[in-house]
Amino acid sequence: MIIFATYYFTMKVGILGGGQLGRMLLQASANYVVETYVLENDKNCPAAHLCHHFVEGDIRDFNAVYEFGKNLDALTIEIESVNVEALEKLESEGVRIYPKPSAIKTIKNKIKQKEFYKQHEIPSADFIITENSTDLSNYTSFFPAVHKIAEGGYDGKGVQVIMNESHIDKGFNAASVLEKMVNIRKEIAVIVAMNDLGETAVYSPAEMIFDPVLNLLDYQISPAQIPEKTYWKAEAIALKVIKELQSPGLFAVELFMDENENIWVNETAPRVHNSGHHTIEANYCSQYDMLWRIMLQYPLGNTAAIMPSAIVNILGEEGYNGNAKYEGLNAVLEMENVFVHLYGKNQTKAGRKMGHVTILHKDFTNLVHRAHAIKNLLKVIA
Amino acid sequence: MIIFATYYFTMKVGILGGGQLGRMLLQASANYVVETYVLENDKNCPAAHLCHHFVEGDIRDFNAVYEFGKNLDALTIEIESVNVEALEKLESEGVRIYPKPSAIKTIKNKIKQKEFYKQHEIPSADFIITENSTDLSNYTSFFPAVHKIAEGGYDGKGVQVIMNESHIDKGFNAASVLEKMVNIRKEIAVIVAMNDLGETAVYSPAEMIFDPVLNLLDYQISPAQIPEKTYWKAEAIALKVIKELQSPGLFAVELFMDENENIWVNETAPRVHNSGHHTIEANYCSQYDMLWRIMLQYPLGNTAAIMPSAIVNILGEEGYNGNAKYEGLNAVLEMENVFVHLYGKNQTKAGRKMGHVTILHKDFTNLVHRAHAIKNLLKVIA
Repeated sequence: MIIFATYYFTMKVGILGGGQLGRMLLQASANYVVETYVLENDKNCPAAHLCHHFVEGDIRDFNAVYEFGKNLDALTIEIESVNVEALEKLESEGVRIYPKPSAIKTIKNKIKQKEFYKQHEIPSADFIITENSTDLSNYTSFFPAVHKIAEGGYDGKGVQVIMNESHIDKGFNAASVLEKMVNIRKEIAVIVAMNDLGETAVYSPAEMIFDPVLNLLDYQISPAQIPEKTYWKAEAIALKVIKELQSPGLFAVELFMDENENIWVNETAPRVHNSGHHTIEANYCSQYDMLWRIMLQYPLGNTAAIMPSAIVNILGEEGYNGNAKYEGLNAVLEMENVFVHLYGKNQTKAGRKMGHVTILHKDFTNLVHRAHAIKNLLKVIA
Repeated sequence: MIIFATYYFTMKVGILGGGQLGRMLLQASANYVVETYVLENDKNCPAAHLCHHFVEGDIRDFNAVYEFGKNLDALTIEIESVNVEALEKLESEGVRIYPKPSAIKTIKNKIKQKEFYKQHEIPSADFIITENSTDLSNYTSFFPAVHKIAEGGYDGKGVQVIMNESHIDKGFNAASVLEKMVNIRKEIAVIVAMNDLGETAVYSPAEMIFDPVLNLLDYQISPAQIPEKTYWKAEAIALKVIKELQSPGLFAVELFMDENENIWVNETAPRVHNSGHHTIEANYCSQYDMLWRIMLQYPLGNTAAIMPSAIVNILGEEGYNGNAKYEGLNAVLEMENVFVHLYGKNQTKAGRKMGHVTILHKDFTNLVHRAHAIKNLLKVIA
């Protein structure tokens, strides 16, 4: 709502982007005293109604971002595709930006991101920089590999697996990274946080299981079922990423565990992340709460888990476009240990993230069983 | 924010009142697809910025409530002092009201409430109806007793203890109830819920410890430390209250346990309640989530506790009036098993509810220890 009050002693914090991550961030903000702002093109976005001040505008536009941010105390992002130049100007004028524009710059371009890992000796798959799709034919000995577009990829888009020469035509005709394929046994993610003082906090690794068709997360278990040695290695590497980025904020470091239980960084997201949704119910301090603590300059929170958990993503069912309906929702709401989160998106389409369900249980088998049941029961149709 | 979209298939739900209960209700609403409305006089109230549509108006005014509600699917309240006549008209026109106006009418007048308990043989202290303060001198043999004003009491206001004749001048010069004093050993509260189908859900009794000076809740432990037999009795009596009220909605039944472990109903609140704040983190389905499930006609949630818990209320420190500052907040935020909730009120005054802290721990002693530490550390000053 538009509020006309003067907010004494209250920090003004803005979010670039108004999707589900912004929505959950604002839900958490209501535990504190803070005046909230959202910049987003779509005035019906999931986060628009949960802030003090919604501003309609393009997060990729220099002026829109600069005008939005210039009177704020702090700013964060819920998506990487923002105007970094405006954030740099705001930073130079004293607005605190989480994460720092320099970290966003490093991460949002996959070439820079890979070079960053190499420079800091952070284990990540070997790579070659390609300028266009025909370049790929020069590197056939590097196959099987993964072609990742340098800028603009999101949610599995902008990534192509190149097993052999017959796949070359799937490659991107733009600056990209060709990454040596890792023999993946598990995909895991570690949420890490750093405050203005350089203090850090790490969440337990979560294990992600992907849908091979949509290349979107199928479900996720936390803590990851990996050897203890690997567990600590994953945490140490995630911490190294955030320390080398030299930026306060909250980050999700996505990792591969290979067949020899070695850990490789896949990529880093400089923001609250899908792989941390379970922390809302499963951890003492959620990833959203943690980012507020950092932005409001409060002490870091406790990352310990209250209980093991799983997340099932609720994706738009293939073949349906239009006004969303949730088939099987009542059956899921009747389950005794699940928490439903719908993002309030009116329109569904195949693979669109419409919500998620968190499952809490002390037994791993119950988590997996429930996750499968929910995947089968809950469908978003139109 | 003001949103201009058309919401297909989305229920419109309104809340009368925009205080902290509305704030936490709206926080929970963001887990579902629902278009939210708030009616409240103060456009800077804790809930104003968390709804789709904020309407400035008086919840005690017939026209304000009727105009606010006439295009909604469902309505709830976060305070009893609303215009019940407007709710009755809205109900007759098909708007679903939680709780039913008939239940609000019974509860908001303490004389009617006491007569309701008597009529339905629900154990509650003996009482006499008084018309004015001089009436009290006719009932000296009934002392010690508690004088409760029939309408308008809230948060300990409108209640006076009359130990003997020398206290008569503290009595209310308005229609009131004079209640025989119960020899209280414990004060407990039970949250109960009922849906449109008449299905019910009960939360474990919580035990409340009051500050004798401000007559406001000091801290609370859940589950209550009472004999198992008494535990079931408390639940059964709370369930009887809601069944006899014949109204869907969420209710808090406040009870006394006397020295013989008998249970007496003190009073009932027909809405989400301070005694249920811990359910946000401590229970699978919070009291706020439960009310949304009822209003959106979803299945009832699981009332089981994830862990035992305590609540400490954060009240405005005596002697301070003005812009709120939170002394000791960082020390509390550093505790590993606590959850801070600030209500975003700019102005503090003595005894004003400014927030609460929930503590989770499996051991009762840790809960009590932490509660005392928080009471001593955290002060709201100006």
